[in-house]
Amino acid sequence: MKAALIYGEKDVRIEDVEIAEVTKGKVKVKVAWTGICGSDLHAYHHGLALAYEEHPISKRKVPLVLGHEFAGTVTEVGEDVTTVSVGDHVAIEPMLYCGECESCRKGTYNLCEVANVGFLGLAGDGGFAEYAVADEKYFHKLPENMSLEEGALVEPTAVAFHAVRKSGLKVGESAAIYGAGPIGLLTLLCAQAAGASETFVIDISEERLQKAKELGATYVINPLNEDAVEKINAVTGNGVDVAFEAAGAQPTFSSAFSCVKRSGTLLVIAGFGSEVSLDPNAGLFKETTIKFSLAYANDFAPVIKAISEGKLDVKQVITKKIKLDNLIEEGLELLTEDKSQAKILVCPN
Amino acid sequence: MKAALIYGEKDVRIEDVEIAEVTKGKVKVKVAWTGICGSDLHAYHHGLALAYEEHPISKRKVPLVLGHEFAGTVTEVGEDVTTVSVGDHVAIEPMLYCGECESCRKGTYNLCEVANVGFLGLAGDGGFAEYAVADEKYFHKLPENMSLEEGALVEPTAVAFHAVRKSGLKVGESAAIYGAGPIGLLTLLCAQAAGASETFVIDISEERLQKAKELGATYVINPLNEDAVEKINAVTGNGVDVAFEAAGAQPTFSSAFSCVKRSGTLLVIAGFGSEVSLDPNAGLFKETTIKFSLAYANDFAPVIKAISEGKLDVKQVITKKIKLDNLIEEGLELLTEDKSQAKILVCPN
Repeated sequence: MKAALIYGEKDVRIEDVEIAEVTKGKVKVKVAWTGICGSDLHAYHHGLALAYEEHPISKRKVPLVLGHEFAGTVTEVGEDVTTVSVGDHVAIEPMLYCGECESCRKGTYNLCEVANVGFLGLAGDGGFAEYAVADEKYFHKLPENMSLEEGALVEPTAVAFHAVRKSGLKVGESAAIYGAGPIGLLTLLCAQAAGASETFVIDISEERLQKAKELGATYVINPLNEDAVEKINAVTGNGVDVAFEAAGAQPTFSSAFSCVKRSGTLLVIAGFGSEVSLDPNAGLFKETTIKFSLAYANDFAPVIKAISEGKLDVKQVITKKIKLDNLIEEGLELLTEDKSQAKILVCPN
Repeated sequence: MKAALIYGEKDVRIEDVEIAEVTKGKVKVKVAWTGICGSDLHAYHHGLALAYEEHPISKRKVPLVLGHEFAGTVTEVGEDVTTVSVGDHVAIEPMLYCGECESCRKGTYNLCEVANVGFLGLAGDGGFAEYAVADEKYFHKLPENMSLEEGALVEPTAVAFHAVRKSGLKVGESAAIYGAGPIGLLTLLCAQAAGASETFVIDISEERLQKAKELGATYVINPLNEDAVEKINAVTGNGVDVAFEAAGAQPTFSSAFSCVKRSGTLLVIAGFGSEVSLDPNAGLFKETTIKFSLAYANDFAPVIKAISEGKLDVKQVITKKIKLDNLIEEGLELLTEDKSQAKILVCPN
């Protein structure tokens, strides 16, 4: 089958590879759509530092089939598989976990002490391929009214959904979202679904802010034109209840920390390129809470339900659909340059 | 009456001053004991930056009677006072608040948007005096089995108690406490009262660690001799549930952030002299929560109850008792130099 394999930094190759065997407990899916994630871009530009050694759970290392945001149709199931059947539409939850360590037993399998943050598509074979084979536990059946495009968006939506749940945002509270990339936009949708009163989206790209506006942001702020904290305080009086840091840089971190009201929460969802500086006394005087949100755990089922019930119209973040053959130029390279792109879906078949 | 007034940096004078009048709603107390706090020391060495202008609630500015950890006996009550009577032993909750802003209405009057962190004894007249007069709402009646020395310890204990409650520490969880000054030691006692399994106390002073050991710390660690994070991981396997930062410096902040297990909490209780550097990716990979705890709100009543029921033996932190006349040399100067001192109580009468 055709697949996009990552070998290392700037080395992603479209190749013909063997399809893995469907042994006991395994499921094979014909991939319909696979989204390109920021971590795919990072892997493309900087390599997969963690995948040069065999992963303790997937037992795999590079070259690996890239791609972890995918959905498709089940074409074969191994012995003992009971939760999905041939013909089912499914989304894949690609988080690797052992199921036995303290974190897994607590339900926080995103923090699995054995997997150490590994995903199919980054530390095992993923979804930029015609077919994918994985253990039954990674598959979630999609309801009939949900499209496979929406299925491919479950994974990034779960990241935003987990962050909003973890933030403790309550109905009627205000939220600021720093960064209007795909995760920022999906966080906006999840904050709306959680009943946020006012939403502020902050980004330096006018095109991204335009997209946030289309998705229903109450206010969009370009910090190149106006001070975000001043604007937020002017509207709210004393800051937002929750700020989401989905940009990952010192200026956005500082602004997000400052725009939160007393007793408010800063939720960090982005990865950062370096350490950040923080004024702890400012945190003390407001009794700020800073939380960090990593991927998802137990979020796929409620996300699928919310999408299927029309509570999360995630299709809106799709800006382009391409063929697997064009993954590098029309996907990875384009996303690096063109900030008007949000989610690009790739069709491998 | 005799009182210790602060005029500015290194300018605390023992003087004879008028006792304020006991008007409607006011209570007068004969002060028995007043503890010296780190913030008194800070005010002595660096002045009271916020008290050079009239405080919006106390309507007072320097010179002010210093001291905010005090207890005494009610000697006079104004018209309409109903909750305390002449002869009652009382502890004073010195936090100034308006009672009307959003923070006050939410019960977080420690974050009052009008008072902006003001206390009797730092932004109004306090307890280093023979008598103190204040609004009825600042007084808490002490049960008969509680001494006035213990009454003077209610305020700093409430700081530690608030921090432990805010941290979410649960019975059976482990805790690390960075800094074994009075607040660190009281945090240790409150963590024990909350049912902590193992407690680690970290300080560079062997004398303070000795005191922590006497107070029941399971492990004491001197980072000059061994790496705190390594030691904690060696004992716990994967870190503590909660770390308390009661020291306020980059090395302790970093160590406290690192010694927390996955899904754990760093609770910042100390003030800092400068910004700190933080690795947000480390926070992400563990989904760490960072909380900040400021003073107290609604903590005096449960602290008084816990002390009176023998659940918090706070007397253990007292290392010296002095007369008001000797406040500067035997109190403020001694505390600056002698790290074996924890809580010094001052008797103004």
